[in-house]
Order: sequence, then C-alpha cells, then structure tokens
Amino acid sequence: MAPSASRRLDRLVQALQRLPGVGARSASRMAYHLLQHDRDGALQLAQALQAAAEGIRHCALCHTFSEEEVCPTCADPSRDTGLLCVVETPADQAALERTGAYRGRYFVLMGRLSPLDGIGPDHIGVRPLLERLQAQPPVREVILATNFTAEGEATAHVVGELARALGLKATRLARGVPVGSELEYVDLGTIAHALADRR
Amino acid sequence: MAPSASRRLDRLVQALQRLPGVGARSASRMAYHLLQHDRDGALQLAQALQAAAEGIRHCALCHTFSEEEVCPTCADPSRDTGLLCVVETPADQAALERTGAYRGRYFVLMGRLSPLDGIGPDHIGVRPLLERLQAQPPVREVILATNFTAEGEATAHVVGELARALGLKATRLARGVPVGSELEYVDLGTIAHALADRR
Ligand SMILES: [Zn+2]
Ligand SMILES: [Zn+2]
Repeated sequence: MAPSASRRLDRLVQALQRLPGVGARSASRMAYHLLQHDRDGALQLAQALQAAAEGIRHCALCHTFSEEEVCPTCADPSRDTGLLCVVETPADQAALERTGAYRGRYFVLMGRLSPLDGIGPDHIGVRPLLERLQAQPPVREVILATNFTAEGEATAHVVGELARALGLKATRLARGVPVGSELEYVDLGTIAHALADRR
Repeated sequence: MAPSASRRLDRLVQALQRLPGVGARSASRMAYHLLQHDRDGALQLAQALQAAAEGIRHCALCHTFSEEEVCPTCADPSRDTGLLCVVETPADQAALERTGAYRGRYFVLMGRLSPLDGIGPDHIGVRPLLERLQAQPPVREVILATNFTAEGEATAHVVGELARALGLKATRLARGVPVGSELEYVDLGTIAHALADRR
C-alpha cells in the first residue's frame, strides 16, 4: 500500500497484518471499516488485545491458556487425575468437553509436530508434557486425542512412544464411521479403519 | 465457540469478530496465534488501534482520513485547486497518486452509493462534497473517478448531476483497453467502450 495521509492509519494497516491470514488489502479494508463505522469496536479490540497479551499465561498443569497458575479444569477436584487426554489445541479440548463423555484431565500441546514446517517437539508442549507425566498424582492412562491428520497421527505416535517409555498405558481415540453417516458417502480409508477396529 | 478456560481469551475472540470478514473460527485462530507466537504483535496492534480510533478524523476539505484539520494533500499549495477528482476510497486516491499524472485536489466519498444495501447519499460524503463544490477557491472541473462497477457508475452519475446542477464541468475517467493487454483477452464491453470513446 502507498502511504496514506495519516501515519496512524499506515501503522494500523501494518499492525493488522500481524494477524494470520491478513494481507495488505484486507488489513486496509479492516482499518477503513473500523475508522468509518466502528470506532467503538476498534477501542474494544485494543483493550481485549492488551488484556489478553498481558494477562494470559499457560496453565502449570495442562499447558492451556489460563489466567491463573492452574486452570479451572485442572483445579476441579471431581475429575479423574489418572486419565490424561492429550489434544492439539484448546478448541479440540472444548470439542471433547462438549460431549460430556470425559471426566479426566487434559494436556494441551498447543500445536502439532510438523517436521516439514520445522515444528519439532521443542516447539510444542512436549517438554512440559514429559514433566506432567512424571509428576504426582500419577497418570495411569494417556489418551491420544490429536487430530486424525498426517501431522496429528505423527504427533500421537511420538507422544504415545514417550508415554510407553515411561511405562504408562497409551490409547488412541477410535477411528471409524461418523455417527449418522451413510457408508456410501464415507471415504474408503475410514471404512477400512472401521472394519479393522470392529468390535 | 464454547467458553474457554480464560475470560480474557473469550473477550479477545469476541472482539476480533468486529473485524469485517472474521468469523468465530478465524477469530479463534488469530487469538491463539497472537498469544502463542506474537504477543508483541498483539500489543502493537492494540496501540495502533487506540491511536487510530482516537487520533484520526476526516480532512475538512477532502473528507479523507487525516490527523490534521486539513490533510497534507489539501494543504499542498502547489496543487491545482480548480480540479477536483472524486474517488470512492483513500486506496483509490493512492492509486491515482501513484501514476504521478494528476496534480489537482481530491474529494474522497468514503464509500459508494448502493441502494440495494441501503447506502444512500447520506451514508457517503455527498453532503460535505456539496459544501466543497460551493466553497472558495472555486472548482472548475469535477473529475469522476469512482470505480467502473455498477455501484461506482451510479455514484459517478449522481455526483456528476450534482456538479452540473451547480454549473460545474464534470468529466469521467476514460474507459478503454488496459495498457499492455491483447484484444483477444479483453472483455467485449470494454472493447465496445474503447471503440465508442476512440480518439
Ligand atoms: Zn490446566
Ligand atoms: Zn484533504
């Protein structure tokens, strides 16, 4: 973008491009929209960004974003401390929580292994996970709930090996035909897995 | 999105959705990215938003975004005050400036007429334009440089009628074949206009 009549506007368009997926054109469109129609929204966003950047850390136990040393889920005494479900992101954790079917603890990796993108074990929460697995109270089963993508599978493999090396049981979410789907429309790999994992 | 372990995070995801084109999923992705990888970017964006929302107003003469009462372009005494080029947005103005072929003044509508979306003359800068056309020093020619879209053409029509009603000359940017293009690949409407406007 050519510099505009306002340095503050230029700086805003620049700063908006720090957001993932936002290029020069959409940053410019966002800035115009906020200044022309929603200055209140701009100020609210400014406050929310500052509050989040300054007040959010990682939970000491599960590594998810938290405002406290230990997040509410980890602090809940009614949850089974022997079960540790390993997920990639807080959004994945939220999806599992919505099922209401799990009452153990979580560990949030905040990413997945992706060697092709240079994302190795040190870039995601493998080190704090290792500490977590060796801490008290003891974990009896690690449930690998990373995504069923190539990278999620690779991550599950590495975390599973790690858990087994520490003498812990490691299980993986079952693959299979989604509830409510017709076989005709399910991809062949999924059907093959559903056949192999039949029970 | 389900509420997360952090109210600050929830508030940030909400606030990011005030940006045009950003839904719940991408707001969430943006928030994670900033918190996980770019807190510095989050703070810079917060400051840029606040500085822009509090320090940017409209130039009293051309209506574009400006930090001063009158923007640098309008304050430049070397520019011809008799020529007034009417554009839709600051980005359009910047495109014209990059050509280096225009040394008159501008008026930035900050939008375009779009009756189907309920955007009438009062929603864009038609009222300040009317004042501008009647102010001193006098304008001798209004150059209609709105986009060559249906809405831009309708806007040019309305602004042109307005200028002519005030006894001013109103011209439109020429339509024609883009420089460097092969006729074979140019759309027929453009070729028809280029034929009609041949010189
Ligand atoms: Zn936690
Ligand atoms: Zn101006």
